[in-house]
Amino acid sequence: MSGSACGVGGMSERYRVGVLGATGLVGQRLVSHLEDHPWFQVVALAASDRSVGLSYREAARWSLPVDAPPRLWDQKVRACRPDELKECDFVLSALTSQVAREVERAFAGAGFAVISNSSAHRQAPDVPLLVPEVNADHLAMVESQRRGSGGGFIVTNPNCSVAGLIMALAPLHRAFGVRRLVVSTLQALSGAGTDGPRALELVDNVVPWIPGEEEKFEQETRKMLGSVEGGKFIPADMRVSAHCHRVATLDGHLQAVSVELASKATVQQASRVLSEFRGDVAELELPSSPERPILVLEEPDRPQPRLDRDRGDGMSVVVGRLRTCPVFNLRFELLVHNAVRGAAGAASLNAELLAAREMLPRRPAR
Amino acid sequence: MSGSACGVGGMSERYRVGVLGATGLVGQRLVSHLEDHPWFQVVALAASDRSVGLSYREAARWSLPVDAPPRLWDQKVRACRPDELKECDFVLSALTSQVAREVERAFAGAGFAVISNSSAHRQAPDVPLLVPEVNADHLAMVESQRRGSGGGFIVTNPNCSVAGLIMALAPLHRAFGVRRLVVSTLQALSGAGTDGPRALELVDNVVPWIPGEEEKFEQETRKMLGSVEGGKFIPADMRVSAHCHRVATLDGHLQAVSVELASKATVQQASRVLSEFRGDVAELELPSSPERPILVLEEPDRPQPRLDRDRGDGMSVVVGRLRTCPVFNLRFELLVHNAVRGAAGAASLNAELLAAREMLPRRPAR
Amino acid sequence: MSGSACGVGGMSERYRVGVLGATGLVGQRLVSHLEDHPWFQVVALAASDRSVGLSYREAARWSLPVDAPPRLWDQKVRACRPDELKECDFVLSALTSQVAREVERAFAGAGFAVISNSSAHRQAPDVPLLVPEVNADHLAMVESQRRGSGGGFIVTNPNCSVAGLIMALAPLHRAFGVRRLVVSTLQALSGAGTDGPRALELVDNVVPWIPGEEEKFEQETRKMLGSVEGGKFIPADMRVSAHCHRVATLDGHLQAVSVELASKATVQQASRVLSEFRGDVAELELPSSPERPILVLEEPDRPQPRLDRDRGDGMSVVVGRLRTCPVFNLRFELLVHNAVRGAAGAASLNAELLAAREMLPRRPAR
Amino acid sequence: MSGSACGVGGMSERYRVGVLGATGLVGQRLVSHLEDHPWFQVVALAASDRSVGLSYREAARWSLPVDAPPRLWDQKVRACRPDELKECDFVLSALTSQVAREVERAFAGAGFAVISNSSAHRQAPDVPLLVPEVNADHLAMVESQRRGSGGGFIVTNPNCSVAGLIMALAPLHRAFGVRRLVVSTLQALSGAGTDGPRALELVDNVVPWIPGEEEKFEQETRKMLGSVEGGKFIPADMRVSAHCHRVATLDGHLQAVSVELASKATVQQASRVLSEFRGDVAELELPSSPERPILVLEEPDRPQPRLDRDRGDGMSVVVGRLRTCPVFNLRFELLVHNAVRGAAGAASLNAELLAAREMLPRRPAR
Repeated sequence: MSGSACGVGGMSERYRVGVLGATGLVGQRLVSHLEDHPWFQVVALAASDRSVGLSYREAARWSLPVDAPPRLWDQKVRACRPDELKECDFVLSALTSQVAREVERAFAGAGFAVISNSSAHRQAPDVPLLVPEVNADHLAMVESQRRGSGGGFIVTNPNCSVAGLIMALAPLHRAFGVRRLVVSTLQALSGAGTDGPRALELVDNVVPWIPGEEEKFEQETRKMLGSVEGGKFIPADMRVSAHCHRVATLDGHLQAVSVELASKATVQQASRVLSEFRGDVAELELPSSPERPILVLEEPDRPQPRLDRDRGDGMSVVVGRLRTCPVFNLRFELLVHNAVRGAAGAASLNAELLAAREMLPRRPAR
Repeated sequence: MSGSACGVGGMSERYRVGVLGATGLVGQRLVSHLEDHPWFQVVALAASDRSVGLSYREAARWSLPVDAPPRLWDQKVRACRPDELKECDFVLSALTSQVAREVERAFAGAGFAVISNSSAHRQAPDVPLLVPEVNADHLAMVESQRRGSGGGFIVTNPNCSVAGLIMALAPLHRAFGVRRLVVSTLQALSGAGTDGPRALELVDNVVPWIPGEEEKFEQETRKMLGSVEGGKFIPADMRVSAHCHRVATLDGHLQAVSVELASKATVQQASRVLSEFRGDVAELELPSSPERPILVLEEPDRPQPRLDRDRGDGMSVVVGRLRTCPVFNLRFELLVHNAVRGAAGAASLNAELLAAREMLPRRPAR
Repeated sequence: MSGSACGVGGMSERYRVGVLGATGLVGQRLVSHLEDHPWFQVVALAASDRSVGLSYREAARWSLPVDAPPRLWDQKVRACRPDELKECDFVLSALTSQVAREVERAFAGAGFAVISNSSAHRQAPDVPLLVPEVNADHLAMVESQRRGSGGGFIVTNPNCSVAGLIMALAPLHRAFGVRRLVVSTLQALSGAGTDGPRALELVDNVVPWIPGEEEKFEQETRKMLGSVEGGKFIPADMRVSAHCHRVATLDGHLQAVSVELASKATVQQASRVLSEFRGDVAELELPSSPERPILVLEEPDRPQPRLDRDRGDGMSVVVGRLRTCPVFNLRFELLVHNAVRGAAGAASLNAELLAAREMLPRRPAR
Repeated sequence: MSGSACGVGGMSERYRVGVLGATGLVGQRLVSHLEDHPWFQVVALAASDRSVGLSYREAARWSLPVDAPPRLWDQKVRACRPDELKECDFVLSALTSQVAREVERAFAGAGFAVISNSSAHRQAPDVPLLVPEVNADHLAMVESQRRGSGGGFIVTNPNCSVAGLIMALAPLHRAFGVRRLVVSTLQALSGAGTDGPRALELVDNVVPWIPGEEEKFEQETRKMLGSVEGGKFIPADMRVSAHCHRVATLDGHLQAVSVELASKATVQQASRVLSEFRGDVAELELPSSPERPILVLEEPDRPQPRLDRDRGDGMSVVVGRLRTCPVFNLRFELLVHNAVRGAAGAASLNAELLAAREMLPRRPAR
């Protein structure tokens, strides 16, 4: 992490963070990612009823190769209710969509800032779908939420695949205008969580369908690349067609993209625009920000999930095979670490942006 | 196999076939596929110098779950020279491209019909790139070859991936006109032959590059869907953009396709056109012809390589997830058994068409 | 299948069979295996409450590369109660152990012959753990069951791994006496059924534990190689130590065995004893009997699950790498198709033995 | 790494190290492992003729998820000849056995200390097969080598699987006496190097044979647990039977072990002896030494290769499922990171022991 403890204007004390859905794959990533965080400290773990009352050790089937923080190993898992997490300044949510819908609203209603990885509220008319490098200006929508909820609000990050694509589209859209694109994905198993496909389904096989995923590509891309005008989201005028596949990789969603630009760009121009992209908030030096949001590789057979997903500690999106497209203008391969840049790291980065912008109130009296 | 021994007008005796490149993966598939063939019998096995003089048992690292024909197990492997295969009526070639270039010309020059799976001569100006259901009329070009070579000629089948795509494109092109398409593939390991990627490269990984493959999509598609006029191939006016990936499946190339049509088609119209396609030579009932060249599945998560690649004994191309495309008109998933419909079965079927059309001379005096 | 319709002394009509647990992996294998059976015909499909009333198509997530029998595709799934399967002559059970315990007793109590693949009753004092080639004499115990239950009875086959090991142990034990053995397994995913491990657990990984499996090796081996005396099972005096692993193969349990013999045997002697083994009921030519129950391979790197599991249509156990053991006398590798010889084929073969011995009453009046 | 730059009594300058076989998998691991080493610095990269003259970037197909040291990326690869590595204090060899036989003798003859991972000289009568925690006293044999070779000598580490087993056997042997053992392995792909099995061989498959591996278990174990008396190795009196399998994991050799002890031990006693083992040279605090050479896990389904191979930075051997054995006394599962504790880390640790014992001369005049 690149940030320092004094990154937030002389912060004297770390924010107290509650994690909702702490026992799932993204929850584990969040707990692990935040353990040495300069600004935040996890103080409460919450999950579904099945886990409540158990120790975190018992409730989580820990599945990362790095150990869980010993400090939290014996902490009791709590229910996902605002009164159970009173001492938290804000909550990070890794809940599944079905559960998130009500729970996140309840926390926001109780005055919490809810920084969520769930898809439940991504399309809500006042909820930003936020990637700091791409659309930090969408935070303007937080105010209208706050007025309605006593100070609480919800901010979400995009789908784990879209989180990768958007990083490459943003600079191309700004420089050349993106009109249409066809994207085909090879998505990793961790994207499906602990209830993902059985091994029997994925050995010597590929599943060419991920329910709801293709629709998210189209909707989330347009919302994020759109503008906020008069307190409303105006989606970008752009057409997206996605083909989504589940393959037997552990982490890292690979995507093959063909894109039509309004102003033609050469491969060299596009490569430069991508490599030089630093995003809108680079000067804040947020702790989870990678030095370079996009890495462009020259080797003909890269990016590859296992070899490239951890670049920039999993926060850099990796682009390769940038070449002309016989049908549109450009085509390329793109890799995003779905569990980091696409989930735990994305939510952390959003919380960091809110903290740096002083939009994260210290909640309880101290 | 659907054909019978009398399929070729009272054929009294099976053709004597030599297999070039008999020890590789496609060679093994050919030998296995032809073992109970009603019209053909393998009588000679030829391979590279490394194998010459060894028994077939020693030379082939047999890798199919079905046993090699015991009859051939102890036969000596011969050199790939016309004088070594004198007793053969014709040869089927499963040679690698580099070797095939000269060897196949030598056999054609010596009066052999060479039915090849190799890519060496696919783009030659007088060599048909043949799929019986799609462009049987391209056989017209065989005559011009014959005049130049004392009776011998070369006929090829397309690349193992293109062999699948072309089957779906042909009926769509005839019915609606195909203008542009973007295709992204997830290709199986057997497509790379016995010298394919190491396990270390493909566990928990995908390789987003197959050298030369994307170019073949563009070139072969246009040649096959084009016409023969005045003794020349006129390629179809069509643009194709391909993204090729190698994944850890054993057999079966999966392809995600977005296609732009000249006349718009509904999903229902396209589905009917695909399902009802029987191709140009259905009435010949060639032994390796599947009952239905294209199967359209309705389940939302199909086709899947392991579950669907063997349909029609590996000769049916399987289409699924036919749906509208937000960018073009249609999109769908397509699966082809690369080693059967895309290689050994393709070459066999081409030989059968030639036999049925009486274009396969009985070579040596008997 | 080697049997013929008249195999059971002029059988005029096929037995009517009900399958309990028809929707699971073993159930699907049974339905598929029996479709062209000369003696048996599946007429009723039963499963858990969740499936009752659905069509078989809806209830089974069909996962075999061969299609389900169209004849049964739309049949309604019934409850696992004797009154629901009145028209059946006998039932084959592929239920999970927990469910099987009561359900199978209920069917036996209602006069049904229950031929089960479940582990629920394998250790019951009057239930034969039957492999026709190995211990057909254990059928003697069926009589004592019948007396207690109005004609019904239960016969089981062993655990899917033990089903392989026992085949090699039986001839070695008869010829040389087996005293002790250490076995280490690499077991396929299908052995864990449709609720088996997640893909996330098995990619780039092995799980060195299968709950309850190691105990089954010890108990079942001793029971099957033991004798029946005075209406009781006397287990064989033998010590077995098993180490069980789950690996990412689809079908085929591989086992590394070191065995101590009472009379020393050379590799040649052991090889001959294994190769020549035909079992106790070869003269019955049961339809599911492989020509050779044990195949001994000479290649140094075999058997391999993918290449060898289908030998003898999955009913032959394959032994390889037979060599001396520095610690005991012999060591070897062994492969069994867990879903065929270890489950569906095993139960079918047991039913066939009972039919051939005229121990399968035609149940309902006709 | 736990050591510090002053670990070797006020060392003022790091040793200059040459790596033989720097382009292979173990060579890459060595280069990567040593990059931040407190005592050693890689200054020369040597490899086979094919690579000589190329940059390291061109010659190595870098296959680790961490980047190669930029400092070495453009260095020219040299030939494996003593006169090409004159400025090195000693060499680490990751050569294949065939090449190592002559090359390593040449370097030793020219006065170099050769710390080798190759199997070429492991059984030589004056070459220690060294694991610092286990048999540091075997270094006594170095003197007899030195006398014969002008100061140069060879020290080797064991086979990558045996390196794991020996760590568990050493404390058990000291405490209880190991008489016999049967071990079955599930070995990772990286153990076979860059020329390992094709993906086509290992998808949905296991290969039950690794040429030469089982013999190494027997020979190396006995040599390492034996003694040095009168300038000779006296092998331990112990019988070992190994069954070796290659499975589709990337790193981490899993082993199932049944062991017979001279004095019986309870599971608790054995667990304590293993957990408390620190080895013979713990007080030296060598940089590559893990805090605990053996970790004993209590969870019933561990160790697992992907989750546990990196413990102790890959230098801790992980034991689990310690339980009684019905045939011998104890059985357990054991995991070793084959590429670290079994190769690159093993060689580094040996070099560190030699440095700490002041047996590594600074070679060239400075």
